Amino acid sequence: MRVLITGAAGMVGRKLIARLAKDGQLRGRKISALELHDIVAPEAPAMPGVDVSLHTGDLAAPGATASLLAARPDVIFHLAGIVSGEAEANFDLGYRVNLDGTRALFDAVRLAGFAPRLVFTSSIAVFGAPFPDVIPDDFHPTPLTSYGTQKQMSEALLADYTRRGFFDGIGIRLPTICVRPGKPNKAASGFFSGIIREPLAGQEAILPVPRSVLHTHASPRSAVNFLIHAAEIDGAVVGPRRNLTMPGVAVTVGEQIEALERVAGSNVAKLIREQPDDTIWAIVKGWPTRFEAKRSRELGFAAETSFDEIIRAHIEDELDNKLAG
Amino acid sequence: MRVLITGAAGMVGRKLIARLAKDGQLRGRKISALELHDIVAPEAPAMPGVDVSLHTGDLAAPGATASLLAARPDVIFHLAGIVSGEAEANFDLGYRVNLDGTRALFDAVRLAGFAPRLVFTSSIAVFGAPFPDVIPDDFHPTPLTSYGTQKQMSEALLADYTRRGFFDGIGIRLPTICVRPGKPNKAASGFFSGIIREPLAGQEAILPVPRSVLHTHASPRSAVNFLIHAAEIDGAVVGPRRNLTMPGVAVTVGEQIEALERVAGSNVAKLIREQPDDTIWAIVKGWPTRFEAKRSRELGFAAETSFDEIIRAHIEDELDNKLAG
Repeated sequence: MRVLITGAAGMVGRKLIARLAKDGQLRGRKISALELHDIVAPEAPAMPGVDVSLHTGDLAAPGATASLLAARPDVIFHLAGIVSGEAEANFDLGYRVNLDGTRALFDAVRLAGFAPRLVFTSSIAVFGAPFPDVIPDDFHPTPLTSYGTQKQMSEALLADYTRRGFFDGIGIRLPTICVRPGKPNKAASGFFSGIIREPLAGQEAILPVPRSVLHTHASPRSAVNFLIHAAEIDGAVVGPRRNLTMPGVAVTVGEQIEALERVAGSNVAKLIREQPDDTIWAIVKGWPTRFEAKRSRELGFAAETSFDEIIRAHIEDELDNKLAG
Repeated sequence: MRVLITGAAGMVGRKLIARLAKDGQLRGRKISALELHDIVAPEAPAMPGVDVSLHTGDLAAPGATASLLAARPDVIFHLAGIVSGEAEANFDLGYRVNLDGTRALFDAVRLAGFAPRLVFTSSIAVFGAPFPDVIPDDFHPTPLTSYGTQKQMSEALLADYTRRGFFDGIGIRLPTICVRPGKPNKAASGFFSGIIREPLAGQEAILPVPRSVLHTHASPRSAVNFLIHAAEIDGAVVGPRRNLTMPGVAVTVGEQIEALERVAGSNVAKLIREQPDDTIWAIVKGWPTRFEAKRSRELGFAAETSFDEIIRAHIEDELDNKLAG
């Protein structure tokens, strides 16, 4: 089993690599080679007996993708991309990385002719307001960002290239990943993780939106589970509609805070300070709320079932199972 | 008023040019210049006092789009594209013409910075089976052809470029255009027009599918009306969702034939010979049937209301209002 991962230096990439290193296998076969690519050098995992290669560069540059495919990977995880805020701020870079880079990889696979399983991380950003109360699987994508547009176009390519037999693609639309480990970032969605992560570390966190905001979350651990399941699922069972909205936990911010109180106590939850920010609120208002995700659940993709579980996953995976204070 | 038309040598392009020549105006302003582009030389209409320029070439070729925009057209009709069958048979050509050509034009407009109205002809081929009984406006596009995929990706670009203010785009998803004038072609959809056009000309026509097949049609005259309305409509009223499913007449093949009997008599309708073709039937089975098209109707896009009207439009526009025999 030879595996290629693009975006290997990112948060999800690193967690996927750690999981593959722990499992040692994928699709029931021992992993023999791991090709890791990113725009910056990815970290090589300790995997004795596995041929690990590191690649750096811009996927959209001419010829960049050919060397990645020389070893004919059985499974490709295409995670590479720049985030929403960056793609909105830099129009050319967003289309170059998120669309042209993806198309270059897809075309290289097409021309190589060995038709591997290809798992692509799309996003719920392909959807844009206004929404029904529950967003069904057959709701139309009308993104309100260039990032969402690039993901939507990549999904369309993935479906057509799969239909044509160039590869066996599965696109997974990730909900907001929460609790994101690491430092606070400037993403508009940052507070969803911040109001959990900072208080658990004994620090104050800012809540810039009303407690009534409803949003769908899955843990980093679930994101990795989605990727593994997408790599292993029988394509014939999925059928021709290859882009799937992943399940998650739909909760209001108020319910997030109640879960934090239950899991870590009210002294921790008190570290959240409400400080309304109209700019963030204006962005968040256009985001999707609750998804049906019926198809993905039926296909065996599973997320947490409560926000308490999402907080506990963070405490186990990032805090060595210990609470601060 | 300066107007640019790509795909000017095609059937819809020629009819649009004839209409503009007749009206002499668009958006309430006298037409002063007409730039016509196609891969083959378009025909110059007789428009005294109008500066008509003809351009030929491949929109996706480097630099090809810049000269088209030198005169800063107020309205661009982007009709250029290769048809479904050709895009399916020739993968590279389809993506080059239908996606790269469109993106090249859109980017040239973006870089020119004058933000014209841009009307793009998309297609109901962005939708793929299975369908609900009536396909709602917010149904997800899951094309089953590379052509449909290219149209879907172009729609996504149009929406994002409009949101960013690069141009003021309207995408119109055309239903099957019927009755197509001219000779029979090898398109799988050809029979929808053939079973009307050939009998009206006193010739036999083959019906390769069951009479129960339900499909949505609009006349070439309606297609031109859609284009003109899309050029003139207030973008603010349309809002951010810029790709619109056009209205049409949803009828079964049996109802088409009954309409032909009513309009032209049973001796004409008797020229239709049923000769089932499993290959065509397999393709047609995956096609969309009936659309709600609520938004486009509310926005003032109007098609025929009966198939009788569609046949009469053909007799008026193509047969000098005369029946054969």
